[in-house]
Amino acid sequence: MSYTIYLSGEIHSDWRQQIKQGIIDHQLDIDVLTPITNHDSSDNVGQEILGLEPTNFWKDHKAAKINALRSNSYISRSDIVVVKFGDKYKQWNAAFDAGIAFGLGIPTIILHSPELTHPLKEVDAAALAVTETPEQVVEILKYISQS
Amino acid sequence: MSYTIYLSGEIHSDWRQQIKQGIIDHQLDIDVLTPITNHDSSDNVGQEILGLEPTNFWKDHKAAKINALRSNSYISRSDIVVVKFGDKYKQWNAAFDAGIAFGLGIPTIILHSPELTHPLKEVDAAALAVTETPEQVVEILKYISQS
Amino acid sequence: MSYTIYLSGEIHSDWRQQIKQGIIDHQLDIDVLTPITNHDSSDNVGQEILGLEPTNFWKDHKAAKINALRSNSYISRSDIVVVKFGDKYKQWNAAFDAGIAFGLGIPTIILHSPELTHPLKEVDAAALAVTETPEQVVEILKYISQS
Amino acid sequence: MSYTIYLSGEIHSDWRQQIKQGIIDHQLDIDVLTPITNHDSSDNVGQEILGLEPTNFWKDHKAAKINALRSNSYISRSDIVVVKFGDKYKQWNAAFDAGIAFGLGIPTIILHSPELTHPLKEVDAAALAVTETPEQVVEILKYISQS
Amino acid sequence: MSYTIYLSGEIHSDWRQQIKQGIIDHQLDIDVLTPITNHDSSDNVGQEILGLEPTNFWKDHKAAKINALRSNSYISRSDIVVVKFGDKYKQWNAAFDAGIAFGLGIPTIILHSPELTHPLKEVDAAALAVTETPEQVVEILKYISQS
Amino acid sequence: MSYTIYLSGEIHSDWRQQIKQGIIDHQLDIDVLTPITNHDSSDNVGQEILGLEPTNFWKDHKAAKINALRSNSYISRSDIVVVKFGDKYKQWNAAFDAGIAFGLGIPTIILHSPELTHPLKEVDAAALAVTETPEQVVEILKYISQS
Amino acid sequence: MSYTIYLSGEIHSDWRQQIKQGIIDHQLDIDVLTPITNHDSSDNVGQEILGLEPTNFWKDHKAAKINALRSNSYISRSDIVVVKFGDKYKQWNAAFDAGIAFGLGIPTIILHSPELTHPLKEVDAAALAVTETPEQVVEILKYISQS
Amino acid sequence: MSYTIYLSGEIHSDWRQQIKQGIIDHQLDIDVLTPITNHDSSDNVGQEILGLEPTNFWKDHKAAKINALRSNSYISRSDIVVVKFGDKYKQWNAAFDAGIAFGLGIPTIILHSPELTHPLKEVDAAALAVTETPEQVVEILKYISQS
Repeated sequence: MSYTIYLSGEIHSDWRQQIKQGIIDHQLDIDVLTPITNHDSSDNVGQEILGLEPTNFWKDHKAAKINALRSNSYISRSDIVVVKFGDKYKQWNAAFDAGIAFGLGIPTIILHSPELTHPLKEVDAAALAVTETPEQVVEILKYISQS
Repeated sequence: MSYTIYLSGEIHSDWRQQIKQGIIDHQLDIDVLTPITNHDSSDNVGQEILGLEPTNFWKDHKAAKINALRSNSYISRSDIVVVKFGDKYKQWNAAFDAGIAFGLGIPTIILHSPELTHPLKEVDAAALAVTETPEQVVEILKYISQS
Repeated sequence: MSYTIYLSGEIHSDWRQQIKQGIIDHQLDIDVLTPITNHDSSDNVGQEILGLEPTNFWKDHKAAKINALRSNSYISRSDIVVVKFGDKYKQWNAAFDAGIAFGLGIPTIILHSPELTHPLKEVDAAALAVTETPEQVVEILKYISQS
Repeated sequence: MSYTIYLSGEIHSDWRQQIKQGIIDHQLDIDVLTPITNHDSSDNVGQEILGLEPTNFWKDHKAAKINALRSNSYISRSDIVVVKFGDKYKQWNAAFDAGIAFGLGIPTIILHSPELTHPLKEVDAAALAVTETPEQVVEILKYISQS
Repeated sequence: MSYTIYLSGEIHSDWRQQIKQGIIDHQLDIDVLTPITNHDSSDNVGQEILGLEPTNFWKDHKAAKINALRSNSYISRSDIVVVKFGDKYKQWNAAFDAGIAFGLGIPTIILHSPELTHPLKEVDAAALAVTETPEQVVEILKYISQS
Repeated sequence: MSYTIYLSGEIHSDWRQQIKQGIIDHQLDIDVLTPITNHDSSDNVGQEILGLEPTNFWKDHKAAKINALRSNSYISRSDIVVVKFGDKYKQWNAAFDAGIAFGLGIPTIILHSPELTHPLKEVDAAALAVTETPEQVVEILKYISQS
Repeated sequence: MSYTIYLSGEIHSDWRQQIKQGIIDHQLDIDVLTPITNHDSSDNVGQEILGLEPTNFWKDHKAAKINALRSNSYISRSDIVVVKFGDKYKQWNAAFDAGIAFGLGIPTIILHSPELTHPLKEVDAAALAVTETPEQVVEILKYISQS
Repeated sequence: MSYTIYLSGEIHSDWRQQIKQGIIDHQLDIDVLTPITNHDSSDNVGQEILGLEPTNFWKDHKAAKINALRSNSYISRSDIVVVKFGDKYKQWNAAFDAGIAFGLGIPTIILHSPELTHPLKEVDAAALAVTETPEQVVEILKYISQS
């Protein structure tokens, strides 16, 4: 039976593409959902659709809410949420998505390099798998998809 | 009628004490719950109670889970979760707690300086108030506690 | 066993006071929760605590969210939500509160004059009682509070 | 992945048709659900199927409940509820639907002209987007539907 | 969008067949679920599959539980539960199914002759429609199925 | 730790009093909730508080809904719902209450004479105990209340 | 309407194959989900994908969590969970799965030889059917699948 | 703020008493709930209160259900469920309780000797702490109870 997974987090590397390709290569029956990963589009969507704002706070606020229409809907429909933390930026939205999944009772697979183990310990502790590479995520998906 | 609030996030300033003092000063009927804020104790509790681990990953893992026994229980009992982001450290656990509250349908008040507006936009967008000082949090609590 | 009730809606007549007095007169074991009913305070709380906004939209937005911290928390803790519709103003927040209660599975008692029957038919149809006077609400509370 | 949306509220303009046409024009993978928008049919269905009533209250009551069979079912199956407020009539059912969606944890997009900002502040504050035109709703749907 | 309905209650008349035929005649997009309506089979299934019991209580118990595997699963998947009360027998299982639907938040349409109004008042009061004939049920289904 | 129980069903014998007395005699820490058991008061409350109705259907309807304000609230707060079926009357409300409890995931103790085993098999099959006398209910409450 | 079932428990006999064959033989519309039943693969998957561990505890821990990604997802999507207890091994995971299903409100069919009746009494008491052979499970599935 | 804990599992050692004593010694604000731990009483309660059964299966069945009235109620009210596995007996009820807690989203602390690590890996993997002695459980409770 198929799984639906949501790929949350870092948007500055091609990890989503690697997981998608792995799913294709192994012919896994998995639907992949993603956020909007175009950084500028995602930041500006509020103003572009709903009009200019005099402050950055409300510019960001409107954009974040429109993006939440997609991300919250996709997270709540997923069987598994995969969350990738990169080495740069705050990435609080990644940890926020992991928390939403946990609050909704949806299991997570976390993906990050070993240097981030300590600051991510709470996120990792709530996950069903902590991985270091997209290949490991694909291996897990392949394993749980066996007929 | 009283509120129960949970104070999540930064442990390197006295913001929790300021909110507690404000609640006392205004005689508000509010129960305040907090995580363990002793950094060393919180990091080492897994090994101290359950024995040494050969790797930092599992050391952190055991500690994070014991802390989750407290934090998850307290979050789920709260009417409001207040989450403070400081200027230092990754603080992914703060964003993670905000996500858990959101997933459980519990409203949040976020507390951070204006410089963090952009990286916290998703967390702020899901909150019912975004504040910059503990005094503002106390003012909100005072306002909603009027008889 | 006691009930907790929330009194939502119209703030321009003394209907809440009448219900509270009736509860006292009949010595009913009922906790009464209310929104902030000071109109100016409720409208301006966002700017007063969190700072001025350049547009009315965001001024209202911040105020409405702080008020929601109280009203959503109180609605979700109530056994019964009483919603009063007056003859003036849009009062969409009253209908909104009735909808929230319905979505949460909390029963409602609706209070309005007979002239409003047609526009309130959907709200009334979801209620467990449709009343015309605060006295009738008190009579119902007295009836269901018999030992 | 597709979305299911419910279009609640005003029935005296062609806004639903504009959104449906936009969805077709942009080839979006979105299922659109609507209430019965024939005003007379909707008002009279109770009596027409279940027999005449001696009072308007029960005539309205029976009709509203049959309409609720459709609207509550459709709201609860939707990923997003779009609610339009027009300039005329009480439209409490629109605010009621927005409240139901909120109580069920389903996000809303609100659609109204700027003059209604103040009376709709509570409804807007709980929404993920506040729009002024059907085109903006279509733009949002197009944005969140990108592959 | 299609509905799934469950037809609970009386098994001694052809009301289920009439509703199914009406759905076909009007080409409604409705999936119809039913309990096992073969009375002997339903009463004896526990003993037939799982072996003889020395007492009628456990004979009935085993049969009722196997039937519950079907009925509880079907009720929980339905958008609407239609419950028919006939003039004979206790039919407590029909009222029990109506209660389960109510407890799960699934709306009901009740079907019975007017003589049963008083003893069914609690069941009727929780329903979204009270009908007297299968034709009325079909008319309601037709009405709410309009595109 | 104490239990809260709701005593639903038959109102024509003193079984509730027997259970209450047993709880007192054994000094059990149990809160007992009951419906309004005055038959006339319960039947007429709708008209008495909310005005006369031209038909029995709506007279019953209004009364049943006011009683539901109490019974649904009490059922949902209970740890255990005890439902008694007598030998007379339809008692569909008793089976309805048992169904509501089941739908809400609240366990039941059923109380009836052995002659009713067959028509009550579905209700019994969902219960955690099927008793024949109030004394047995008290014995169970005493057993599960041991420190 | 089809059912989805999950076959939990013993992996040392061919009971799953017998149930699958019975479903094929009777042309039942039932989707069958299973855990990974290759014992070695299931035990070692944590180390094989995520790297070696210095202790058996963490080796088992990582493997169990990856298996939980599949089993928890499958259990939560099932209409019925069938749990088989064999004569050997501790099989605590089988009882654990039965408990998860119960906590989620998903009905169970238990399968074991009569010698295990006493130690399995709590698991059996929460089930909707207790069977001794895979044939009985197939007979139940056939019975509840009748059109 | 206080915790409520339920002590499930083994009844042949004094581990419950050790935990209770530790709670007293450290003056922790913790309510402790337990099952009936008198083995004979627990096994025979069905027959003793509800009458003799001709088969052991139904004798056990009635007893297990009466015990479930207590254990399910207590588990669902707990903040933490502690489950102890001993070296003897099947103890499927302990694993079943752990599963119920997991299905309900209530965290667990598991207590067992290291020899049981492999057969308990699924139960341990879902827990927030795996302990070997009652003292460790007390230490955890003491740690999370700090003010």
